[in-house]
Amino acid sequence: MSIKVGVVGARGRVGSAVVDGVNQNDDLELVAEVDQGDDLQVLVDNGAEVIVDFTQPSAVMGTLEFCIANGIHAVVGTTGFTDERYEKVREWLKDSPEVGVLIAPNFAISAVLAMAFARQAAAFFESAEVIEYHHPTKLDAPSGTAIKTAQGIAAVRREAGMDPMPDATDQALDGSRGADVDGVKVHAVRMTGMVAHEDIIFGTQDQSLTIRQDSYGRTSFVPGVLTGVRKVADYPGLTIGLDSYLGL
Amino acid sequence: MSIKVGVVGARGRVGSAVVDGVNQNDDLELVAEVDQGDDLQVLVDNGAEVIVDFTQPSAVMGTLEFCIANGIHAVVGTTGFTDERYEKVREWLKDSPEVGVLIAPNFAISAVLAMAFARQAAAFFESAEVIEYHHPTKLDAPSGTAIKTAQGIAAVRREAGMDPMPDATDQALDGSRGADVDGVKVHAVRMTGMVAHEDIIFGTQDQSLTIRQDSYGRTSFVPGVLTGVRKVADYPGLTIGLDSYLGL
Amino acid sequence: MSIKVGVVGARGRVGSAVVDGVNQNDDLELVAEVDQGDDLQVLVDNGAEVIVDFTQPSAVMGTLEFCIANGIHAVVGTTGFTDERYEKVREWLKDSPEVGVLIAPNFAISAVLAMAFARQAAAFFESAEVIEYHHPTKLDAPSGTAIKTAQGIAAVRREAGMDPMPDATDQALDGSRGADVDGVKVHAVRMTGMVAHEDIIFGTQDQSLTIRQDSYGRTSFVPGVLTGVRKVADYPGLTIGLDSYLGL
Amino acid sequence: MSIKVGVVGARGRVGSAVVDGVNQNDDLELVAEVDQGDDLQVLVDNGAEVIVDFTQPSAVMGTLEFCIANGIHAVVGTTGFTDERYEKVREWLKDSPEVGVLIAPNFAISAVLAMAFARQAAAFFESAEVIEYHHPTKLDAPSGTAIKTAQGIAAVRREAGMDPMPDATDQALDGSRGADVDGVKVHAVRMTGMVAHEDIIFGTQDQSLTIRQDSYGRTSFVPGVLTGVRKVADYPGLTIGLDSYLGL
Repeated sequence: MSIKVGVVGARGRVGSAVVDGVNQNDDLELVAEVDQGDDLQVLVDNGAEVIVDFTQPSAVMGTLEFCIANGIHAVVGTTGFTDERYEKVREWLKDSPEVGVLIAPNFAISAVLAMAFARQAAAFFESAEVIEYHHPTKLDAPSGTAIKTAQGIAAVRREAGMDPMPDATDQALDGSRGADVDGVKVHAVRMTGMVAHEDIIFGTQDQSLTIRQDSYGRTSFVPGVLTGVRKVADYPGLTIGLDSYLGL
Repeated sequence: MSIKVGVVGARGRVGSAVVDGVNQNDDLELVAEVDQGDDLQVLVDNGAEVIVDFTQPSAVMGTLEFCIANGIHAVVGTTGFTDERYEKVREWLKDSPEVGVLIAPNFAISAVLAMAFARQAAAFFESAEVIEYHHPTKLDAPSGTAIKTAQGIAAVRREAGMDPMPDATDQALDGSRGADVDGVKVHAVRMTGMVAHEDIIFGTQDQSLTIRQDSYGRTSFVPGVLTGVRKVADYPGLTIGLDSYLGL
Repeated sequence: MSIKVGVVGARGRVGSAVVDGVNQNDDLELVAEVDQGDDLQVLVDNGAEVIVDFTQPSAVMGTLEFCIANGIHAVVGTTGFTDERYEKVREWLKDSPEVGVLIAPNFAISAVLAMAFARQAAAFFESAEVIEYHHPTKLDAPSGTAIKTAQGIAAVRREAGMDPMPDATDQALDGSRGADVDGVKVHAVRMTGMVAHEDIIFGTQDQSLTIRQDSYGRTSFVPGVLTGVRKVADYPGLTIGLDSYLGL
Repeated sequence: MSIKVGVVGARGRVGSAVVDGVNQNDDLELVAEVDQGDDLQVLVDNGAEVIVDFTQPSAVMGTLEFCIANGIHAVVGTTGFTDERYEKVREWLKDSPEVGVLIAPNFAISAVLAMAFARQAAAFFESAEVIEYHHPTKLDAPSGTAIKTAQGIAAVRREAGMDPMPDATDQALDGSRGADVDGVKVHAVRMTGMVAHEDIIFGTQDQSLTIRQDSYGRTSFVPGVLTGVRKVADYPGLTIGLDSYLGL
């Protein structure tokens, strides 16, 4: 018994990778591909149990209202969600309490796990630093993921009442010690050939622990989306972020 | 207000590293060092609140009975514990329900966390392999830690009903694909200069996640022991393994 | 003054990546694209100074004879060269002593350098092992590159009269210590998401040196080909392998 | 036939590690240990063929004059050498043309090789960055080795007329992109538990090459010193730096 999946935004770069992912897995069945201008009714007509939506902020709310009203679960990677939008989704769900909606900013399982592991480890190591590596066409440094990782570590350290990290540096070339994000040093490498990579390094007496995340291509979100598709029926109501689906 | 600590087996290699660790931390106070032949009464006389015991299987049970009877918490790395011994400790604790006893086979925080993270990640990646690196005087391959790591991954995969890992190899030099531990490949590197290191590698579409653990010296157990000392009063009764102290 | 380049096999997967590479570099000018059935005369007519040939063993010799006779340098990645073929190329070159021909089995600069560095380091470390990582659809293990790397290390050690590597292992799970290639252990990891990666690890007292090569995609040969195009005029006669162009 | 070795400064931290190294190798024989205040004549009396000198700038010149005059080769790690001192050594060697003297600032073979490999690779990659990792009690950042590595890369790039590295960053947290050493970015990590480690990373289309150097302890200079001892007789005259002994 496979899960019947509809993909909204199926001809976009992300949507078409989701279509490929659904097609390559025997436990999933692609029953509808919807794009801008198409009638959503095809989702109902073709019996979609779950939709995946990677579209535009301007379109996603209409799709969600329709799906919830029709008892279709939704896995959503579209951006632009605010507290008000979350509230509206929760209201719609009141009349369809069995429907699950997952809205997540990041479906790259390895990145989500890396960040969670960093928070779990943070209280037990004197030192922690983050190094991220990206292609040299990236405009911002450090990456948003690296900043968020460092903030997560810093929050755990603060809550645990830990001392600042040891650092005897008193003679440094400007920039050598990285950017300071809430007391956690973050370094950004820009390297032709690389895609997106991150080292989260923790150290204490005679040991270190490194969590390394590598993205080798542009479809690393697919396994997380498919995990969402498989589990969304077990999580009725609104879930924000993939973490709980990963047991985190 | 520092915690008053007694170290049993204080002149052994491990015990003396614990003594150093206690002395280097302001929130801990070393009040007694006990070794073979010494009277345990000094622990009571000097007001020890917690003892650390890295001694011999032949000695540890007597020490535990004494400490529990005297309301002293215990953090124990001594080996040789069996179900019967655990049962005896639990019996002694019945009359001292406020006393905490932590018995753990491994106090290297980075190794304990690495193994826990591996279990958490295991269900979400098609592929997983383990590489361990040790000095060339090691007698067994792979290391016990690597085998245990692989078994943990295999158990999670089995429980999640996952397919075997993809591997199209049909022409291989003998040994190149590593040892098979419950379906997880494990590779052992022996390298002059290295101490003890482990890569746990997970892969799925367009991404990988690597958990790297490095031991640089022989005192990597100390931070875990001190974590035990600080928290043991909050965990009355018998606790086996450091995991719950680390929030795992 | 740009170099005028003709690409033979321009519509193949490799050839079209070379075409892209030529077009993206201002010091190179694409003057001809030739494919199966096209007349080579276009190379002369359009003033090609250098051709790149990634075609078939059945086609390449005719192309080389034509180019050498017309004073056009050649950078060749086509396979199937034998000593006899090399001899024939050398004969053709006798009448065109100013023409350079580079024939190389591997144009991935990072891989060629990694192998060269491994040979340079091999005599100075007690221990050396190789780990290669590939996608799980690869049929052979270890990779040809890893085997060649290990053979290179072994040859240097033999010539230097070095002892076998230290290894006290006396209790091992089958396969855990890798494949034995001339006394050098080689490990092969198969991991969904990965492309092609290699660690060459050397160890001696209190230190290790690791040469890590990562291929993230299928066009990693392009920079080596372009290096060949830029330098081939400085290397008249037949050159086999990219090494001397890289100063190795 | 073993080489007869005298160690000058034998009771210092470095000297005693050299003594251990000589004693652990069958092809070397320790014939004299000399320290401050001892008569150098023991070197002659005991037939030393090579001395190793890790002492003080104030003592080393006297020792060298004595050894050269007595036909004893010298391997020197003592600091404080200037052009004038080198000149004086060359003068002394005029009368003993068969004597070899090796004076090197760094005997850690893996570090010397890493730096040499970096210079060899530098001309072939668009991007290059250096990350060094040290214990948090280090006072300077980046390390002298990392700065020297970056300078070596920069010099090769300059000589090859290469463009600046690609870097589209236009929005950066201060320090995130590292220190700029002659156009090469250098990052310094400070981590409890670590000793001394360096990544030299090169990238070009679809590939990267990383040279990783790890020091795990304080005796990583020993193999380089012993290499010097074994080869110094083959290098008559003054040699500065270990490079030529390593075939670099």
